[in-house]
Amino acid sequence: MLVFTGGIGLVQHIGVLTSGGDAPGMNACVRAVVRMAIYRKVKISGIMRGYAGLLAGEMKPMDLGSVGDIIHRGGTLLRTARCKEFYEPEGQERGARRLQEAGIDGLVVIGGDGSFRGAQALMRHGISVIGIPGTIDNDIPGTDYTIGFDTAVNTVLDAINKIRDTATSHDRTNVIEVMGRRAGHIALLSGLAGGAESILVPEVPFDVDVVCARLMRGHNRGKLHSIILVAEGVGSAVELGKQIEQKTGLETRVTILGHIQRGGSPTATDRIWASQMGSRAVDLLLAGKSGLMLGVRRGELVEVALDKAMTERHGLDQELYQLAGILSI
Amino acid sequence: MLVFTGGIGLVQHIGVLTSGGDAPGMNACVRAVVRMAIYRKVKISGIMRGYAGLLAGEMKPMDLGSVGDIIHRGGTLLRTARCKEFYEPEGQERGARRLQEAGIDGLVVIGGDGSFRGAQALMRHGISVIGIPGTIDNDIPGTDYTIGFDTAVNTVLDAINKIRDTATSHDRTNVIEVMGRRAGHIALLSGLAGGAESILVPEVPFDVDVVCARLMRGHNRGKLHSIILVAEGVGSAVELGKQIEQKTGLETRVTILGHIQRGGSPTATDRIWASQMGSRAVDLLLAGKSGLMLGVRRGELVEVALDKAMTERHGLDQELYQLAGILSI
Amino acid sequence: MLVFTGGIGLVQHIGVLTSGGDAPGMNACVRAVVRMAIYRKVKISGIMRGYAGLLAGEMKPMDLGSVGDIIHRGGTLLRTARCKEFYEPEGQERGARRLQEAGIDGLVVIGGDGSFRGAQALMRHGISVIGIPGTIDNDIPGTDYTIGFDTAVNTVLDAINKIRDTATSHDRTNVIEVMGRRAGHIALLSGLAGGAESILVPEVPFDVDVVCARLMRGHNRGKLHSIILVAEGVGSAVELGKQIEQKTGLETRVTILGHIQRGGSPTATDRIWASQMGSRAVDLLLAGKSGLMLGVRRGELVEVALDKAMTERHGLDQELYQLAGILSI
Amino acid sequence: MLVFTGGIGLVQHIGVLTSGGDAPGMNACVRAVVRMAIYRKVKISGIMRGYAGLLAGEMKPMDLGSVGDIIHRGGTLLRTARCKEFYEPEGQERGARRLQEAGIDGLVVIGGDGSFRGAQALMRHGISVIGIPGTIDNDIPGTDYTIGFDTAVNTVLDAINKIRDTATSHDRTNVIEVMGRRAGHIALLSGLAGGAESILVPEVPFDVDVVCARLMRGHNRGKLHSIILVAEGVGSAVELGKQIEQKTGLETRVTILGHIQRGGSPTATDRIWASQMGSRAVDLLLAGKSGLMLGVRRGELVEVALDKAMTERHGLDQELYQLAGILSI
Repeated sequence: MLVFTGGIGLVQHIGVLTSGGDAPGMNACVRAVVRMAIYRKVKISGIMRGYAGLLAGEMKPMDLGSVGDIIHRGGTLLRTARCKEFYEPEGQERGARRLQEAGIDGLVVIGGDGSFRGAQALMRHGISVIGIPGTIDNDIPGTDYTIGFDTAVNTVLDAINKIRDTATSHDRTNVIEVMGRRAGHIALLSGLAGGAESILVPEVPFDVDVVCARLMRGHNRGKLHSIILVAEGVGSAVELGKQIEQKTGLETRVTILGHIQRGGSPTATDRIWASQMGSRAVDLLLAGKSGLMLGVRRGELVEVALDKAMTERHGLDQELYQLAGILSI
Repeated sequence: MLVFTGGIGLVQHIGVLTSGGDAPGMNACVRAVVRMAIYRKVKISGIMRGYAGLLAGEMKPMDLGSVGDIIHRGGTLLRTARCKEFYEPEGQERGARRLQEAGIDGLVVIGGDGSFRGAQALMRHGISVIGIPGTIDNDIPGTDYTIGFDTAVNTVLDAINKIRDTATSHDRTNVIEVMGRRAGHIALLSGLAGGAESILVPEVPFDVDVVCARLMRGHNRGKLHSIILVAEGVGSAVELGKQIEQKTGLETRVTILGHIQRGGSPTATDRIWASQMGSRAVDLLLAGKSGLMLGVRRGELVEVALDKAMTERHGLDQELYQLAGILSI
Repeated sequence: MLVFTGGIGLVQHIGVLTSGGDAPGMNACVRAVVRMAIYRKVKISGIMRGYAGLLAGEMKPMDLGSVGDIIHRGGTLLRTARCKEFYEPEGQERGARRLQEAGIDGLVVIGGDGSFRGAQALMRHGISVIGIPGTIDNDIPGTDYTIGFDTAVNTVLDAINKIRDTATSHDRTNVIEVMGRRAGHIALLSGLAGGAESILVPEVPFDVDVVCARLMRGHNRGKLHSIILVAEGVGSAVELGKQIEQKTGLETRVTILGHIQRGGSPTATDRIWASQMGSRAVDLLLAGKSGLMLGVRRGELVEVALDKAMTERHGLDQELYQLAGILSI
Repeated sequence: MLVFTGGIGLVQHIGVLTSGGDAPGMNACVRAVVRMAIYRKVKISGIMRGYAGLLAGEMKPMDLGSVGDIIHRGGTLLRTARCKEFYEPEGQERGARRLQEAGIDGLVVIGGDGSFRGAQALMRHGISVIGIPGTIDNDIPGTDYTIGFDTAVNTVLDAINKIRDTATSHDRTNVIEVMGRRAGHIALLSGLAGGAESILVPEVPFDVDVVCARLMRGHNRGKLHSIILVAEGVGSAVELGKQIEQKTGLETRVTILGHIQRGGSPTATDRIWASQMGSRAVDLLLAGKSGLMLGVRRGELVEVALDKAMTERHGLDQELYQLAGILSI
């Protein structure tokens, strides 16, 4: 485990970047990093477009005003991009050199686990790094929560509300595909909160016949509509919709929410955790800490070793999954 | 043209039904029909599930409270359904008999042009009928506006706002498929209002190479994202997204909004027109009128002969289409 | 009436400013002015903070990118301010000189009737001017619609929806104060669309005893809640709430929506009219027109002489007012 | 401490009521109680209008369909009311008798601490009771979270977003009064998440001169607007606005959000905790438990003795309060 601990004042100049997929709340986090750094009287620079911008030397000093009026905006003002070059040792070395040339000795990386691997590489070249989990999928090991997750779940919920209106009027089955390639967290929480009849996630094998039997049971009991939430990792919602229609004879419609789920003004929860994590990251760097990711565990802000964040899976809440099944009978 | 004009008091008992696809604002319209009928001291009954419910005899008397607390809800409390049986003369005759047995001599039909054809058939059996255009697609001849259209456009707009957040962060092209099998009204208005780079509608032929050239021009000028609105009548958005990605090399994402567009609490515009149309329909029936559809022309409520509403196409606003092109350069 | 008509190409350099209270959709309008000017290959400058900024010389050339990503934002990127100095002839003369020094010979003024008086003064100094009505109150003579009105009405509607939830649970009367010092348009349309039991506006005298009698009638019939919309021009909502509580004994709560009504992402309607008006204003200036305000009449874009826009009142729609009363029984 | 523990199956018939101020998520909680009871094959009845309805004998058996389509609605379908009679021993005894007559031996009370005092009284008459904290104020001792709080904070946040639009355009100070008579939780969280310049809460004494000095500092630095969040327990926002305007000379506007904060479709967080608490309450009763309140501590569902919930204050998060101050410099 790589955790360096030095004296206060070790870090003179902090850089901050967002990397991987963007998530609502990243702006609130960048704002907190910048303002806390200024409050602590340490230099702060923003690095554009993640590691791609780092390699291209796209950096600029940030002042209080540079993060004014962004706390409520989706996306990230620092933008983000993929950077294959940075997967290679030469790219990583060049990135570290770029930072050193700019005098940046501490880095806050807001992103997913791929981004943290890059951060660890920089650490090996002498840069202090703190990771902050930012992705709507909530699939980062070592933390119960990632920035953007709460907004994404509420965005899906809003879509379910709308679809419910029309489904009720028509006696229809609706299949809604939501994000989550590896993890079903968005599907589970929005499905439970939205009262979905079935929730299909990568973590739990499913049988389409069981889904259909459940549908028919509700239908025969007089239910006016049914909503099935499908995480994209499970497979094609369009295909599933066709199967259901064939097997049950119930009119079935498919919606693919896509990138709507990444946008929108962040919820209070996302802004507040983002603000706490951003400001804590600055304080950790100033306390000489490095190699840590901030996370939320049992409702509290915690520090996790970055390499642990790379390995331990954050599994689906099985109790919630069962509860969703019981309550949507 | 079938327009009967009789004396006041001709109609003793009004029925109201919603038919075809549901649309936000239908509840506000039903409320207006019911309350105006009660205000005019005429009997009023709700018929469930459109013509299907009519044939099945699913009717119930409505009082003031029966339409309380529904003005703000999407969908239709009377529900709606397709009814193949009612396409046939026997079905239509049976429907008319059902009404006569219940003593209903005036009918308000809220729905699309298919629904109005059914209404005309009932008229031939002596029922007075008034049609009210309700469909999110705004594709009914004889009126510039249909109930639900304004809500649907604003729902799409909200989706565009969200996608814009993430598109800006990523330098991406987003293709958004919206409703509109025969007509591009939703795509045009939401695309213009959302600042979409390209709007593809069934009414205007397009060349994917021109779309791509436009994309590249914006991209080369430094645009951080592009949004392409596609009406479903134009073809598969998924297919189009693939083509664009291949031809331009720009990362492209596809969203299919689907039935989200039918739901949601209706906008003020939809509720107000719905209220005006519903109450006017009652007064027309009480004035002995029949065979008319209510519509909006040049911002005012108008009466159109139902058979005209069957034939005259309501074309795309070409000026707006060109304006959208100019403003999104 | 001051309407100069010259040859095409008369105007070489257009300025645009927003003045008076801001309104959602102003950004969409500024965007349309700027982009249409660029499309027509004429120079375009933005003037900050209305006439105050004009006197202070706060102007800057606008390019395509300067109005990117603003169509969906509330407020006005050009900002706005009051300017007492500009009420005086010397101020107006100095303003005209500022424009002439900058080479600006055509001006688009987006704002209320006070702003148009300033525009007329500039016209007398040889500047071509086109006015665009922008204010949430919809109280500008000569047009049925002003930019921002549709958004404000929908914002109030959203508040009514929320209050309805809790009012129904509690058997309560809610008094909601909305904007409208001189005019009750916001109160009327949101009240009708929101199903308010009573709507109090400056245009129609009211008797608090009649309001209370109506409340009690609904209450005795079993209504679970009542909502009373009050335009601020009518008097203190807090005071009214107290009176109602005393006279009826019904628990009464007061909400003052205040400046929430000025904000929010503009609706489709506001963005589309704003876009049409902004682009038309440019074309009018380029056609040598001046002294005109754009407006909406019977659902169509019209040109109105500015001095007419100063005098003719745009009255409350009495038919809608009566309809609201009938439907909320 | 009153905690009875008996054998499984002790409780044969569960009643559920909502009491005190309503809160978004109460419906999701009632749904969970009803459906879990049915799943566990125990009888379940809904009691209308809290203790008032209990005394009046307003109860009805609930089935699966009775809580269909309510998870997304604000308010409470069981309604709520104040009941002075139930404060007295005779009233409480009568309430217990009503339950016993109906065969109800277990009761789930969703509400605030006042409601729990009533529940304790019923317990003394042999009814098993479980309390669930439901109030937007989040001021119930023994739990970090109450149902409705997350929705209320997000509703205030949405209002701040809207006000920010117009404040930025105008260079204005906005004072927003939010709920919280005894506690500043809503003000603190929405103020932190909304980037408010100052947050005034009952728990922290404030000096209006310090607030003004802070405002002027921001203003002089070029801030275009300032937002001050005020919990109602602090005093009149209208009065405060006047003082600020006098002392700073800055244009100041006041908004009183009022009962908007109680309404709206509940957020995912509120629906999920509500679902978990509701279903757990049933299981506790069936396990022979009584005299407990469910709560959330460190992100997990916990059981707290009801009498503890009456006494221990849930204080303001001082760290968050300071963070808000630092980040809004």
